[in-house]
Amino acid sequence: MDNKSALFSKLVNHYRQKPISFHVPGHKFGRGFNPIGKSRYKDLLTIDLTELNGLDYLHQPKEVILEAQQKLAELVQADYSFFLVNGSTSGNLAMILATINPGEKIIVQSNVHKSVIDGLFLAKANPIYINPALIPQLGIAGCVDRQALADMLIQNSDAKAVLLTNPNYYGIGADLTDIAKLVHQYKIPLLVDEAHGAHFGFHPSFPASALVMGADVVVQSTHKTLSAMTMGSVLHVKSNFVDVERLKLFLSMVQSSSPSYPIMASIELTYSWIKEQGACLWEKQLDAISWLYENTIGLKNIKLITDIDKCYYKDPLKIIIQTKNNLFTGFNLQALLEERGIYFEMADLYNALAIITLGNSFRDVMRLKQVLFEIDNVISLSLIGSNEEMFRIAKEFTAIFDYNKGNSIPIEKVLYRRNISLPVKEAIGEISAKAIMAYPPGIPIINYGEEITKEAIEYLLLLKSKGVKFQGLEDETNNYIRVLDRTNIID
Amino acid sequence: MDNKSALFSKLVNHYRQKPISFHVPGHKFGRGFNPIGKSRYKDLLTIDLTELNGLDYLHQPKEVILEAQQKLAELVQADYSFFLVNGSTSGNLAMILATINPGEKIIVQSNVHKSVIDGLFLAKANPIYINPALIPQLGIAGCVDRQALADMLIQNSDAKAVLLTNPNYYGIGADLTDIAKLVHQYKIPLLVDEAHGAHFGFHPSFPASALVMGADVVVQSTHKTLSAMTMGSVLHVKSNFVDVERLKLFLSMVQSSSPSYPIMASIELTYSWIKEQGACLWEKQLDAISWLYENTIGLKNIKLITDIDKCYYKDPLKIIIQTKNNLFTGFNLQALLEERGIYFEMADLYNALAIITLGNSFRDVMRLKQVLFEIDNVISLSLIGSNEEMFRIAKEFTAIFDYNKGNSIPIEKVLYRRNISLPVKEAIGEISAKAIMAYPPGIPIINYGEEITKEAIEYLLLLKSKGVKFQGLEDETNNYIRVLDRTNIID
Repeated sequence: MDNKSALFSKLVNHYRQKPISFHVPGHKFGRGFNPIGKSRYKDLLTIDLTELNGLDYLHQPKEVILEAQQKLAELVQADYSFFLVNGSTSGNLAMILATINPGEKIIVQSNVHKSVIDGLFLAKANPIYINPALIPQLGIAGCVDRQALADMLIQNSDAKAVLLTNPNYYGIGADLTDIAKLVHQYKIPLLVDEAHGAHFGFHPSFPASALVMGADVVVQSTHKTLSAMTMGSVLHVKSNFVDVERLKLFLSMVQSSSPSYPIMASIELTYSWIKEQGACLWEKQLDAISWLYENTIGLKNIKLITDIDKCYYKDPLKIIIQTKNNLFTGFNLQALLEERGIYFEMADLYNALAIITLGNSFRDVMRLKQVLFEIDNVISLSLIGSNEEMFRIAKEFTAIFDYNKGNSIPIEKVLYRRNISLPVKEAIGEISAKAIMAYPPGIPIINYGEEITKEAIEYLLLLKSKGVKFQGLEDETNNYIRVLDRTNIID
Repeated sequence: MDNKSALFSKLVNHYRQKPISFHVPGHKFGRGFNPIGKSRYKDLLTIDLTELNGLDYLHQPKEVILEAQQKLAELVQADYSFFLVNGSTSGNLAMILATINPGEKIIVQSNVHKSVIDGLFLAKANPIYINPALIPQLGIAGCVDRQALADMLIQNSDAKAVLLTNPNYYGIGADLTDIAKLVHQYKIPLLVDEAHGAHFGFHPSFPASALVMGADVVVQSTHKTLSAMTMGSVLHVKSNFVDVERLKLFLSMVQSSSPSYPIMASIELTYSWIKEQGACLWEKQLDAISWLYENTIGLKNIKLITDIDKCYYKDPLKIIIQTKNNLFTGFNLQALLEERGIYFEMADLYNALAIITLGNSFRDVMRLKQVLFEIDNVISLSLIGSNEEMFRIAKEFTAIFDYNKGNSIPIEKVLYRRNISLPVKEAIGEISAKAIMAYPPGIPIINYGEEITKEAIEYLLLLKSKGVKFQGLEDETNNYIRVLDRTNIID
């Protein structure tokens, strides 16, 4: 019995005892599974079990799942840690529902993930949005300024929580220590969507985790930068301002009552491995990353971003590339990489983003370097002229990107009202019935209930012309948008 | 390329092209996974991918996921079918949120799954509960009577939907055709939690599906009686009374924005297999079940339930056993079976329940028969006297089991109010701050906001003494219960 990953061991041991299953799941250790899929599924389905005696139950853990969560809490210095099987989405929903009563104010960073907006809706919260600073070099949003937050808290001293996203999708974030102290002066919790920072704190070269910097509730995607199966996430609590019983109640509300044991065990295995191996787990990847920066200095048209404004930290596992002088977009770069068998995480107009994890070898990074030089030559050979017009549109949109501009109506009024479908180009001036976002990163460009501006539509069409995938647009070709029916706009 | 399961094929093909991944998930085809777990996980993690080009996106499907859902809709005669990765829990939440505006009435069968109660809370619905008839022979609830529902609709003609659970956990249900017609007279949808009937309609000996009987929205657990991975469920729509766009919006709200491809592909593989093989898939299991009934007639103390009141159907894949004259409880039977390596789905005071699926062989059923005869002898050798007192308590509780008795306060008022922890025995007369249920089946014994009766506590303590697993009780030993703080009870 491997006590370091006791849940996984119990699942395997149960199967080894050759039990006869007259319970769910119906595939029964994979025996009743479509033969076409067996080669991939058969080993894992032997541990795709249900809450049998000895296997505990996620929504009221008392034994092996409770112990695994306690070990995790100890590892990350939390009071409580919870395994999530419905992704960081479920953690974000539950942390808002657990801290905000209907109608209460919450100060929220404006460029949050869709799941945060959804949590605000389900909690019937009254969000006060705070805009992050922009990072001009990357054309993306950075972090919330401490002073701006201090001012906002003075104006909204009745707010019941502050919610930030830190780091952003690109691994760029800020030290939250002073912000946490500020928030705690109001005796309210700091909630942090740290989906992209599950590895923080586990190596000296990684940023500190939000929890260690003083946040009260932190949600992390164990599947993103660590090694859990997709949908495996965690939520940590270390707080004097959060009712943990209420949190548990909402966690069980937004997650399946038949939680996946393979996902839970993959979370356990991730952290038991880190506990056992420590920081040395990442030496190979960090070596490879240093090697990559050193060996790409000779690129003529592509640059790897290394210098970020000092007020931020940058996660070393994220590699951000751009073309110098923005000859090509991030989308162009991503496409050129994919043609050569290299799949990046995401692109935007300016950047393409790679995530390097324990799953990457030195060889992967060597191949990346080789391909970057190949592409570097393609770019110089096929100069397509500048993208000035495009960047003008993007800059105009970015400049007005502000959820507080006052022409929004509350989410609940949007979701409960009749809406109609309009061609995108005809939607200017209407009220959006959906959150529209490029996915990834899943951060709304137009939010529910927001008045649709000319600039937003131009930006949308621009991204669309670059082949960006959208969520929130209507039809298969992304030509339609759902807006509120004007005949029914006032309650 | 296997076009019958195109999503699965695309996942496998992507891996076969030896792509280099600089994206999530961090395990990267399993290469960065804890070596201790690799033997079980490695094959499946090769297809645990993310929304890459060609792999579509669950929350706005346009390609392979959309096609897989359309094939499913065709198979089950739905207008629309949706894959769910967060279990039937997410389907139940979304179907209520999609059909009920805040404050609107919905008529709800009283013995519903916890996720339905949670959906009512999140939708801020005004539930009007209707009690099902009891099945005395089994000591469990059956179905809602059509005439009772007709009367309730007359009294509540402003209700916006009717929600039923059909079949129940034991596979017992009713023909909904007339009920659907009745509900449609009010131009409102019939919503059905058919979690336990995912296989209905796929074999002549199975009951018809709720959808075919006229229901508007139906949620089914593909992982329960069919073959998907745990958390794999589906939702079907065939309705003139449901806004499908609004439904999609809520489905994406209650499910991870990083949905699991292995779960989605396991749903696809389940239905592509059924489409290919048809009803003959189940011949072996149905033969084995007939054989079991024929060959257990000689049991002296145990009976297999075959005769159910004619107003109900019984799912042939569910086997319900009892001791004659209730010498032993269902829990006793379950424990005796487990000692012999046979794991049943569930037990209650009277019954123990087995689910037979495509994952079971004839040999499993032969072993069950053998063990039943072994236990039959143990029972006759060790008569422990009657359980009269126990059944008296259970009957008293069952007789008052009624969510409409008027001493409840709305869920939202409970969840947002301070609560305290009390020893179970001291909680009589208090208002429960949690839904308390035996799990499985996950149907509340005491609901959020319900006044805790002496009978409910006696029943709870009785079940507890039988080793039942609870959700909703407070501590690790189930000795405490959360109740509203009386100092703070009135708004």
